[in-house]
Amino acid sequence: MAATLLGLGLDLLGTFVFGISGAMLAVRRGLDIFGITVLALAAALAGGMLRDVALGVTPPAALQDSRYLLAAIASALCVFVGHRLIERISKPVMLLDALGLGLFAVSGCRKALLYGVDPLPAILLGVVTAVGGGALRDMLVAEVPRVLREDVYALAALVGAMMVVAGQALALPGGVTVVVGVAAAFLVRVVSVWRGWQAPKAPGS
Amino acid sequence: MAATLLGLGLDLLGTFVFGISGAMLAVRRGLDIFGITVLALAAALAGGMLRDVALGVTPPAALQDSRYLLAAIASALCVFVGHRLIERISKPVMLLDALGLGLFAVSGCRKALLYGVDPLPAILLGVVTAVGGGALRDMLVAEVPRVLREDVYALAALVGAMMVVAGQALALPGGVTVVVGVAAAFLVRVVSVWRGWQAPKAPGS
Amino acid sequence: MAATLLGLGLDLLGTFVFGISGAMLAVRRGLDIFGITVLALAAALAGGMLRDVALGVTPPAALQDSRYLLAAIASALCVFVGHRLIERISKPVMLLDALGLGLFAVSGCRKALLYGVDPLPAILLGVVTAVGGGALRDMLVAEVPRVLREDVYALAALVGAMMVVAGQALALPGGVTVVVGVAAAFLVRVVSVWRGWQAPKAPGS
Repeated sequence: MAATLLGLGLDLLGTFVFGISGAMLAVRRGLDIFGITVLALAAALAGGMLRDVALGVTPPAALQDSRYLLAAIASALCVFVGHRLIERISKPVMLLDALGLGLFAVSGCRKALLYGVDPLPAILLGVVTAVGGGALRDMLVAEVPRVLREDVYALAALVGAMMVVAGQALALPGGVTVVVGVAAAFLVRVVSVWRGWQAPKAPGS
Repeated sequence: MAATLLGLGLDLLGTFVFGISGAMLAVRRGLDIFGITVLALAAALAGGMLRDVALGVTPPAALQDSRYLLAAIASALCVFVGHRLIERISKPVMLLDALGLGLFAVSGCRKALLYGVDPLPAILLGVVTAVGGGALRDMLVAEVPRVLREDVYALAALVGAMMVVAGQALALPGGVTVVVGVAAAFLVRVVSVWRGWQAPKAPGS
Repeated sequence: MAATLLGLGLDLLGTFVFGISGAMLAVRRGLDIFGITVLALAAALAGGMLRDVALGVTPPAALQDSRYLLAAIASALCVFVGHRLIERISKPVMLLDALGLGLFAVSGCRKALLYGVDPLPAILLGVVTAVGGGALRDMLVAEVPRVLREDVYALAALVGAMMVVAGQALALPGGVTVVVGVAAAFLVRVVSVWRGWQAPKAPGS
């Protein structure tokens, strides 16, 4: 995705949005400006760095291109100044978070396929890219990560990544696959929150 | 080890067994099918992925060969369906976990030596391979990892990895070293649980 | 830094000092000799290993040169035997910890620049090197990491790493940059503890 200007823009938007989620959690925990920045960086960059390190892309994109870092720092500053406003518009934030989830799941899976990873592990890497930053963010404040607590979070990333594999198998153009994958992950996430979908628990647990 | 069919089989068995441990923890915490799968994947694959990334083997084996991923997913499905049965046979599960510990400690140390790592760091990497997945599993649910809570867990992995280094120093055939290393780690772990061995604490702590 | 004998010595001192911090935490939590060693290794080695893996330096220095591992194990043994003495001299330990923070921030940023990373991400990598080990140490015992709890911890590492970038921009000799960077990080940390500096929180949080 990062090959195109649009792709880079979407990637940076995802980074910014996840940074917002990390910084907002830090504010809720009463952390100072440095704690806010650390959690914003962790949430925004860790998923993509995990993906790149696993693919042998070193230094990872987040260290090769300063704009990733600047997007994450910008999210921390926005939250520092405007967290009360952001708290009030939590619905838009949830929508942006769902968008980031889709963007990262799709870009992670695409990059893995590009580096010759098989479809099944490529889907896993897409999911890790999408949920890894948020998992580290929550573990840093000693919380059980959202990906384990919320029912349809990993599933949404999974659906997005699977669309990429399906699109490649059907030889669809890359742009179509990206749009379908991001939209699918976004819709699954948003509809599941809206309708209160719950995934099945183990019978008798 | 993965060079031989037997070796791959043992590796996949270790992956499956550790996946069971992650999935069972998820069921006990009341997580849904996705949480069960995430914890199974983390417990089964994280140790080996840490090892491979540290050795510069990218993508790591767990992403190059889909069978690792399938073994971990299979463990999640088995637990989803049969966790009550598995809970009842906890002694066999502990034995399998001890076997997985030995398998991963030995395979991790062997792979490190193969990549030219010195004996002492190779032993460390064997231990990390064996305990890393379980540590991530426990950290994901905000628990202190078993490797810190249970007295003779890291020690068992250490003994297994040391056998590999000793076997190489004595120029023993690889197969003998594997059997001795896995058996030693397994026995140290099982006997320590059975006899309630405790490691010394710092005097006056 | 590790290119010179002095540099290696400083690196090993940083490793030892951070190992002490991990081992002391383990003693306070009542962990046994293996738990003490695991936390010492995590605190001493994780930051540098993250840095090296992100830069594609595999195996990381801590696995290529057994002296890093021995320094960490030595710190665990010192604490096992002498933790009551070390507890009493907590002020020197805090000073050593501040020194380790400066050493790792500087060496991490220098290594990143050496591998062609841009200044801004190089500063980030310096900070990650300095605070990564401590963060893993605290997460392993299910605590919120010190880097999030203490006001001027990440800032001190940031100042040290920024000095390295400034020194390079001014074409200062490497030795001068190292001394200035380590001293700056050390002083910011020590003075902030001494004067009780607090970083600003988000207004209205």
